Amino acid sequence: MQKIYLDHASTTPVDPAVWEAIRPFFNGTFGNASSPHSFGREAARALEDARQTLASFIGAKADEVIFTSGATESNNQAVYGIAQSLKHKGNHIVASRIEHHSVLRPMESLCRDGFKVTYVTPDDAGIIHPDDIRKAVTKETILIAVMHASNEIGSIQPVSLVGAMAREQGIPFLVDAVQTVGHVPVDVTALNADLLSLSAHKFYGPKGVGALYIRKGTKVASLFKGGDQERGLRASTQNVPGAVGMARAAEVCRRNMDEEIAGQTQLRDRLVEGVLQRVEDVKLNGHRQSRLPNNAHFSFKGIEGEALLMSLDMEGIAASMGSACTSGAMEPSHVLKAIGLDDELAYGSLRVTVGRWTTQAEVDRFLDILPGIVSRLRI
Amino acid sequence: MQKIYLDHASTTPVDPAVWEAIRPFFNGTFGNASSPHSFGREAARALEDARQTLASFIGAKADEVIFTSGATESNNQAVYGIAQSLKHKGNHIVASRIEHHSVLRPMESLCRDGFKVTYVTPDDAGIIHPDDIRKAVTKETILIAVMHASNEIGSIQPVSLVGAMAREQGIPFLVDAVQTVGHVPVDVTALNADLLSLSAHKFYGPKGVGALYIRKGTKVASLFKGGDQERGLRASTQNVPGAVGMARAAEVCRRNMDEEIAGQTQLRDRLVEGVLQRVEDVKLNGHRQSRLPNNAHFSFKGIEGEALLMSLDMEGIAASMGSACTSGAMEPSHVLKAIGLDDELAYGSLRVTVGRWTTQAEVDRFLDILPGIVSRLRI
Repeated sequence: MQKIYLDHASTTPVDPAVWEAIRPFFNGTFGNASSPHSFGREAARALEDARQTLASFIGAKADEVIFTSGATESNNQAVYGIAQSLKHKGNHIVASRIEHHSVLRPMESLCRDGFKVTYVTPDDAGIIHPDDIRKAVTKETILIAVMHASNEIGSIQPVSLVGAMAREQGIPFLVDAVQTVGHVPVDVTALNADLLSLSAHKFYGPKGVGALYIRKGTKVASLFKGGDQERGLRASTQNVPGAVGMARAAEVCRRNMDEEIAGQTQLRDRLVEGVLQRVEDVKLNGHRQSRLPNNAHFSFKGIEGEALLMSLDMEGIAASMGSACTSGAMEPSHVLKAIGLDDELAYGSLRVTVGRWTTQAEVDRFLDILPGIVSRLRI
Repeated sequence: MQKIYLDHASTTPVDPAVWEAIRPFFNGTFGNASSPHSFGREAARALEDARQTLASFIGAKADEVIFTSGATESNNQAVYGIAQSLKHKGNHIVASRIEHHSVLRPMESLCRDGFKVTYVTPDDAGIIHPDDIRKAVTKETILIAVMHASNEIGSIQPVSLVGAMAREQGIPFLVDAVQTVGHVPVDVTALNADLLSLSAHKFYGPKGVGALYIRKGTKVASLFKGGDQERGLRASTQNVPGAVGMARAAEVCRRNMDEEIAGQTQLRDRLVEGVLQRVEDVKLNGHRQSRLPNNAHFSFKGIEGEALLMSLDMEGIAASMGSACTSGAMEPSHVLKAIGLDDELAYGSLRVTVGRWTTQAEVDRFLDILPGIVSRLRI
């Protein structure tokens, strides 16, 4: 059976060009980038080239980007780092209610240390309204966090407007761009972001590496303490192959972006229309237009999402209920609750995310198989 | 010019077997190990196999090992995690004065939150005496940290005795085993360790991945908050290729360990004897017998270590002053100060660490070149 992967929001295969770029850094240019000898200097040069490539991909300067182990670390570093460095100024944070757990949970832990968080609810299409953020801000607010696009329902947020308001008020603004970097244009200046997190394995780069953009002048305390790597902001021997791979992945995305957006949007729309036509009592979640080119997210009445996933899996089709990070959890998704779904619809959810190598034939096979499964599960 | 790499304590090239093992996990078995579909389950199986292999390599059970991004994270996780979970019991920590910065700096930051640390000084051969640790313990002590072997001077510590005492007193014991795992036998039971940190790139595995052993029953708060990966202890999409590579590296080390210890000890001794015979006013740092098989560390009178390194580098030979993590630092090494070296000898230091592919011819070339450089620099 030919397997079909429709879960690109969870993770992506590594692009062959990335693989080729990484290879020489395993046993050729293997030095420790902090070593002053030729092996180290060669590694450091590759690391700084990668930093420059990645920075320019998101409209940043090289010295505004630090490499991390992935988006969870980046988001944790941003939230804890700002809280630590600005706690003398205030103890209040404003965040959208649909942030990823790697943003929300650090905030919850800060609440045990005297911080307060105001969570802003999106509308029923999953869009956060900048005015609601503005209303939540107090004199004590030291951080605003609104993700660029939802990892579950794919809604793209009016981040730029929120950022402009944050800038006006002098409040650091964190944008979790894990789902958008490499998929739609991301420019830290256009988005008015002060902090922006990203993860390589979401855009055809290797797992175990990510980055955090920190706008010049934004003070964050470090999460890792130890050596003086990454300008003292992130102790640890640098993962040079990872950084090189992430930069190469960014280059491939940059080169093909317009084409990929067009192609994936077409597949996504075919998928959305196909499902809405062929299946009854199904709802598309998230905004119809302002959404990721590769994301379709549905709720089916009278179906357990897990049973649906397992049935698709038996046909060789990989999709998801929502976030892979919470797929073991029994709670309904906080995102689906936030957009007002009742428990039945929240539990009956399915996320389908296409990718670089998804074909129309694969989408069509999914559309052929789905209605039968849904009927069977509804009996 | 044939380059000679004598800085294996900073980092090692990736073993070709490791490279081959990782390869299929880039675009074949690329799933997110938290995804419930077949792509995810296949990745999860590989991850758990890797965990089992690595755990058994250090005498642990699989559910006592979490994967991290490297030793800095492991050490930070251990120190902060214990402090957070045991702060109701006490606010005192005992640590050797020669720990790595990734152990010391988290402790320093805890001191700003009301913790106190007693640092225990080694003897002049760089050995920590268990009795000195015992004397430093108070009723408030919640953590004892003594590294297995010094990353600078290579002294192997009587960790097992310290651990037995810690166990007797019910105090968690952290062993930073970054320099020993893969190089000498490491068994968490024999060492009486409750927490043990390690890093793949120090034993011919990939950069960007490490692990932390946490003995069953030892309660640590998590450093990363977000998803529920690694039994809730380490949020973040798991780096499956990294974990697989680390496990493969461990297997290669296990298979060849006796032979490698014998071979590297011989090269190291040839190196030590050669330097002491051919150069005047030079001192071997660290213990003569109780030291890493691959580590030689010297202090030269009347020489700047940096000038020595640069001169060797111009001959194609890579060595180190001490730790790569601090190689940008202008301070003399805290380890060399702790063993009583004056500033002149501390600044005139050279660490030479052999590895899996180091040949006798390479050692001999180093021994041929060194005396001339030393004479030139002493003029």
